[in-house]
Amino acid sequence: MSKRQLLLVSTSKIHGQGYMAYLRDELRTFFRNVNTVTFVPFARPGGISHDEYTQIARDGFAPAGIDIKGVHEGNYLENIINAEAIFVGGGNTFVLTKTMHEEGLLDPIRKRVSEGMPYMGSSAGTNLAGLTVGTTNDMPIVWPPSLEALQLIDFNINPHYLDPDPDSKHMGETRETRIKEFHHFNEQLVLGLREGSWLNIQGEEITLKGTHHARLFRKGRKPEELAPGVITRLL
Amino acid sequence: MSKRQLLLVSTSKIHGQGYMAYLRDELRTFFRNVNTVTFVPFARPGGISHDEYTQIARDGFAPAGIDIKGVHEGNYLENIINAEAIFVGGGNTFVLTKTMHEEGLLDPIRKRVSEGMPYMGSSAGTNLAGLTVGTTNDMPIVWPPSLEALQLIDFNINPHYLDPDPDSKHMGETRETRIKEFHHFNEQLVLGLREGSWLNIQGEEITLKGTHHARLFRKGRKPEELAPGVITRLL
Repeated sequence: MSKRQLLLVSTSKIHGQGYMAYLRDELRTFFRNVNTVTFVPFARPGGISHDEYTQIARDGFAPAGIDIKGVHEGNYLENIINAEAIFVGGGNTFVLTKTMHEEGLLDPIRKRVSEGMPYMGSSAGTNLAGLTVGTTNDMPIVWPPSLEALQLIDFNINPHYLDPDPDSKHMGETRETRIKEFHHFNEQLVLGLREGSWLNIQGEEITLKGTHHARLFRKGRKPEELAPGVITRLL
Repeated sequence: MSKRQLLLVSTSKIHGQGYMAYLRDELRTFFRNVNTVTFVPFARPGGISHDEYTQIARDGFAPAGIDIKGVHEGNYLENIINAEAIFVGGGNTFVLTKTMHEEGLLDPIRKRVSEGMPYMGSSAGTNLAGLTVGTTNDMPIVWPPSLEALQLIDFNINPHYLDPDPDSKHMGETRETRIKEFHHFNEQLVLGLREGSWLNIQGEEITLKGTHHARLFRKGRKPEELAPGVITRLL
């Protein structure tokens, strides 16, 4: 996958800012050779329509000088084959994954990414870039035929990674507990990406960007904090 | 299902107390005609073994004067057919559901409950009593063949229900947002059971117990707070 260009972000907005506002410079750089990004709205946050969601993306990308076209505006497959770049937005990972499988869009996207088409994912769209979507935080409100994801990277991501709250009296599992449970049944690395962090991947070079460390979980090992910068050797 | 006897609890422990300690009186009453409860450890919290988990249940039930036998101690199906009562413990709902489907245990448990055998669930075991496990909070660390649950009640439960934190700067979805998304794709009622709350169901009479209100979500309606007491008419 030496031609891959991936921008995998934990969240579409950080507290107190508009959609994609904190990422504006990164969007300009990552999509510098792209006029129009094809937006995949299938994760439908809050159950909104594809048109409504595409308008949110359009408004968020406009300040970075990037046009947005909805993948649902016309034929899905043709729009992917002809896309300059793709952005898969956040929402419910199960709704997204079910639609991607049912519409047969995983292989076409893999092929385009392997040829060098830039892929951006946010939240559920970042889950979708991993080996499986088995480290999503979402509720299984629909049932996809499989948890298989795009496998553009050879690990899983947990977006919106949240540190345990030492003052919490809630007995539900912490995120770290959940990922440790994941490793009782799965082998792959899991990278916990905190809100405001993202990965910029150019071929084999993986760079952690943003202001936070990321938390790396490996089966049978203690979790490790990774500082922003090139982290290729660990992944 | 007029003979059903169900005890559906949100959590196995509340902050600062041991396993089942807050429920001791309720256990004594609910299991008053039972000497030995057959424990289903398949949800494996933290990935622990069936033996380890059964020991935790045994230690938690002993002060209430109730013996515990692991369903895995011998033949699953025989142990269910011969059980005086069943308790399905919490952990990962997907791990639990996958095992229940693969071992063919849903129908035998339904039959026993319809005949009047007491069923208790905690957390994942409470999810399993609903129509589907589609309102679990857990991570899909394994892939069950379906989300179909025991359907001992004709609604879904969201255990460990958590109110939005007004001070949170985290952008991940709140529980209420997730359940509203659920209702874009599903019809059934969802009852959010806060930690320390439980349902005691005798035939058609459903009683909310514990110190908290529960939050009822109906498709297309505003959520409603239900006070402890008999709530049959709403469900």
